[in-house]
Amino acid sequence: MITKLKLNRAVLLISCPEKPGIISTVTNFLLEHKANIVHFDQHTTDPHSGVFFMRIEFDLEELDTSFEKLEHDLHMLGEEHALDWQLSTNKKRKRMAIFVSKADHCLTELLWRWKSKEIPVDIPLVISNHPDLKEEVESYGIPFYHIPMSHETKEEAEHKALELIDGKVDFIVLARYMQILSPNFISHFPNQIINIHHSFLPAFVGANPYVRAFNRGVKLIGATAHYVTNDLDEGPIIEQDVQRINHRFTVEDLKTAGRHVEKRVLAEAVSWHVEDKVLVHGNKTIVFA
Amino acid sequence: MITKLKLNRAVLLISCPEKPGIISTVTNFLLEHKANIVHFDQHTTDPHSGVFFMRIEFDLEELDTSFEKLEHDLHMLGEEHALDWQLSTNKKRKRMAIFVSKADHCLTELLWRWKSKEIPVDIPLVISNHPDLKEEVESYGIPFYHIPMSHETKEEAEHKALELIDGKVDFIVLARYMQILSPNFISHFPNQIINIHHSFLPAFVGANPYVRAFNRGVKLIGATAHYVTNDLDEGPIIEQDVQRINHRFTVEDLKTAGRHVEKRVLAEAVSWHVEDKVLVHGNKTIVFA
Amino acid sequence: MITKLKLNRAVLLISCPEKPGIISTVTNFLLEHKANIVHFDQHTTDPHSGVFFMRIEFDLEELDTSFEKLEHDLHMLGEEHALDWQLSTNKKRKRMAIFVSKADHCLTELLWRWKSKEIPVDIPLVISNHPDLKEEVESYGIPFYHIPMSHETKEEAEHKALELIDGKVDFIVLARYMQILSPNFISHFPNQIINIHHSFLPAFVGANPYVRAFNRGVKLIGATAHYVTNDLDEGPIIEQDVQRINHRFTVEDLKTAGRHVEKRVLAEAVSWHVEDKVLVHGNKTIVFA
Amino acid sequence: MITKLKLNRAVLLISCPEKPGIISTVTNFLLEHKANIVHFDQHTTDPHSGVFFMRIEFDLEELDTSFEKLEHDLHMLGEEHALDWQLSTNKKRKRMAIFVSKADHCLTELLWRWKSKEIPVDIPLVISNHPDLKEEVESYGIPFYHIPMSHETKEEAEHKALELIDGKVDFIVLARYMQILSPNFISHFPNQIINIHHSFLPAFVGANPYVRAFNRGVKLIGATAHYVTNDLDEGPIIEQDVQRINHRFTVEDLKTAGRHVEKRVLAEAVSWHVEDKVLVHGNKTIVFA
Repeated sequence: MITKLKLNRAVLLISCPEKPGIISTVTNFLLEHKANIVHFDQHTTDPHSGVFFMRIEFDLEELDTSFEKLEHDLHMLGEEHALDWQLSTNKKRKRMAIFVSKADHCLTELLWRWKSKEIPVDIPLVISNHPDLKEEVESYGIPFYHIPMSHETKEEAEHKALELIDGKVDFIVLARYMQILSPNFISHFPNQIINIHHSFLPAFVGANPYVRAFNRGVKLIGATAHYVTNDLDEGPIIEQDVQRINHRFTVEDLKTAGRHVEKRVLAEAVSWHVEDKVLVHGNKTIVFA
Repeated sequence: MITKLKLNRAVLLISCPEKPGIISTVTNFLLEHKANIVHFDQHTTDPHSGVFFMRIEFDLEELDTSFEKLEHDLHMLGEEHALDWQLSTNKKRKRMAIFVSKADHCLTELLWRWKSKEIPVDIPLVISNHPDLKEEVESYGIPFYHIPMSHETKEEAEHKALELIDGKVDFIVLARYMQILSPNFISHFPNQIINIHHSFLPAFVGANPYVRAFNRGVKLIGATAHYVTNDLDEGPIIEQDVQRINHRFTVEDLKTAGRHVEKRVLAEAVSWHVEDKVLVHGNKTIVFA
Repeated sequence: MITKLKLNRAVLLISCPEKPGIISTVTNFLLEHKANIVHFDQHTTDPHSGVFFMRIEFDLEELDTSFEKLEHDLHMLGEEHALDWQLSTNKKRKRMAIFVSKADHCLTELLWRWKSKEIPVDIPLVISNHPDLKEEVESYGIPFYHIPMSHETKEEAEHKALELIDGKVDFIVLARYMQILSPNFISHFPNQIINIHHSFLPAFVGANPYVRAFNRGVKLIGATAHYVTNDLDEGPIIEQDVQRINHRFTVEDLKTAGRHVEKRVLAEAVSWHVEDKVLVHGNKTIVFA
Repeated sequence: MITKLKLNRAVLLISCPEKPGIISTVTNFLLEHKANIVHFDQHTTDPHSGVFFMRIEFDLEELDTSFEKLEHDLHMLGEEHALDWQLSTNKKRKRMAIFVSKADHCLTELLWRWKSKEIPVDIPLVISNHPDLKEEVESYGIPFYHIPMSHETKEEAEHKALELIDGKVDFIVLARYMQILSPNFISHFPNQIINIHHSFLPAFVGANPYVRAFNRGVKLIGATAHYVTNDLDEGPIIEQDVQRINHRFTVEDLKTAGRHVEKRVLAEAVSWHVEDKVLVHGNKTIVFA
């Protein structure tokens, strides 16, 4: 789904070991604070001994306290019941950095959806290891930083990027960014870096996936959006989709079809992340779409 | 989704005018009865003045009372809070009648999914206005009743059908049943008769929809499963899907493609109905799939 | 398919009443001219008394005459065998005008695919009845003409548009152009104006299709790209697709989902048109994709 | 597509090294024999030095010779031009053996499409390494042979199967047959054994693919129909499709969804094979659907 958070809404995400009464506890808490529930989603990996996940979108209109007080009380509730929780409100938009290289299809889709208010975020900056997309980015009034990167300069370049984004962005989208981030960099943004993998996972291993797909004569090609972890391309999958092809498609045609499905899948995943609809559980996601 | 209800599970469906505290009220009630929530789904048409819908699947393992007592207490709760509710348990399987004419594709799909336990229902009988499918139905050990129907005998035939199913079935599936049911008949099974419409709705109006689709040169054909109301083909839509075609498809090919999408869409809709995942609101459905 | 025409390729489209030997006649002709066939597609509406359609993509590398001579000889062949034919070559790119109003999603998708060479056309100009998209269009280096249009000024406005495009464009794409073109205007571009209909056809009739789709509770929404004829939205369908939605989608969400499917469907249809893969037969198309 | 071959139709498949004039040569030949072309499909892997593929469906109504004479003349033509060709006619239906184990979903789908004349083949027998599906198969009037198979008896069992089908079937469908055929067995039916792989390829390697898909949290599951070669699951892909799932699907639900996509993909691939729409090129297929 694509619902934009309306004014004066908040989203509470909770995860905790499964035990009876969690829903009651939390909904009673919200009722007491006059926080009217708009959407409620729940999932448990196992009703007896699993992990419990909950997303509650609620109205702040009739809240009988300040948002800060609500946050404070939630902190108490979380302590008491050992809840892992996160509260966000659409009064404070998420801040997204985009990392790109030379390909612009994912970037353009994200910027268009941002400009047309489909993806309600702030974009403080775009970082690239190539200068090619500078003009396009700046035409949207967004600062563009070119940080060249080679094997030797990787540590320094990542350090420079971290300085630019530190405290200024909440999450990062790798929009066909052709560099592998170091574990150190990733550790600053756990489950907050979204990548688009140019294949349906499991994928053709090794170089030139489209050549391999062509040689194997597949009838569908796909793309996978996932959170970045230290295991390359093995992070939690957020969204996947495929596109039908046929024997007349050249390798070049496969790449074109791939671009179309990549930009669609990445933009959808980013939307869900922005609306706090994605919860991570180990190496999987729960998507309340 | 296709989850089969496991042993000792119950599903509680609730709808009521939106007001604060409903979730708390109901989850507290279940907590007090030691009914452990497994799946929780919720929807509201408008958080301020809309209608509230809720589906709760819960475990009966640790229930501290009898199921009858739970039902009784729910009755009290419903009275107090003006809830429209329905409680079902997988200990008592739903009973499904299938109405057919001559085409067997939807029937076969339903019977196969039933035999392979994908659709956990009892099928006390199949009724048809033609004798053609008698042998197939009886090969599954299911009684088959042939009730011929003409314009003149319609009232009598429906009366006969009602006698056969009265108190014996919970819902009816029209698996390409080529007769229009009377308002009187439908009134016995409100939102409990599922039909498969041989087109994507809105559809080509009038006779021979596949000829019309062919003549219009459409690139996709579809099917729609919906609840039957007195407004022909205008009842609440449960599920829709399409199938891609091309210029080489003859009218006959369109019909074949139509059969494949029809049987898939109908079977999916029936699964959701059986698992109490479909709630009706006016002329629409909420599907918690 | 998305194959871009390679250098030195030509496409020959032929239609004629079905009769034995057409394929032989034409392929012999090409063989004699050393025009090597790369792709060959054929369709007949009825092998005995129907209409025959053929698309031949061939290599110009070893052509033993000039392209002009080939064209001339084709003219003779067409006369002799009563063929309706059209020859195009990628040496001469098609020229596309885009008509827009205020919505930019289809325009942006087309311009991006054009800029990234996915759609190999020239775009001499964009015409709009509103000034809103001037800046975006001009940022691509494409002239933008604002021609206001009211009920009173329609004839004059269309006249002005015709003057601007006369002899300068080969076909027109209505990228969410919210005006109905007059029969006179359309007569200048028979089967050369592509429109995107904001619904899957058949569609919800009347105003506010998304409100109607919302009220009907459909589970899929769609879009249809078609050639413009004098019968509003009744022209030959080129491509259709759908997008799955659910009960949580607001009317606004439906519109957003609609935009995504619209831009995808329109861009695909334009690609096929540019590559001469679409033949029109009465009110239908044959798409050799 | 699903077109059934009409009465008095033939299909000619041709492959050969690419060279100018092939289409002319063959269509002239057919014209001389008054064989009216109904459908013509062509593909080349490379117009200069590749392999050329052609499928011609033609009418036998006005053939000026016997079918045997046509076949004889084709033989001469093939010799002269070094063509690899295959001629079939719907007067002589293909004969299909089905191999099964215990799962019946693919078998049932194939038998239903066969019974309803969607797949126009003869089915002389079904062979299984388990007795479970005997009753179902025989209810269709088809002989069922139970050939138990263990590691020790494999050679003997395959020998027995070969004796049963030798000269009696044209191709074999492995409808969830849980045995690996030996290279010797496969060599009797090159590109004439169709298997359904329970995953989208590339797939989760190793045992329990659905558990692996579940653990990886994929959002789509798929199936792949392919010809059997000595490289397990590496043969030419005929068709693939996917089905959307979500986080609520249990491993059991994934298997159910897998069954639905498997039976659909396998039946489609079998249809195309029966209608001679699939040509094999190395490890890939050209599907003229």
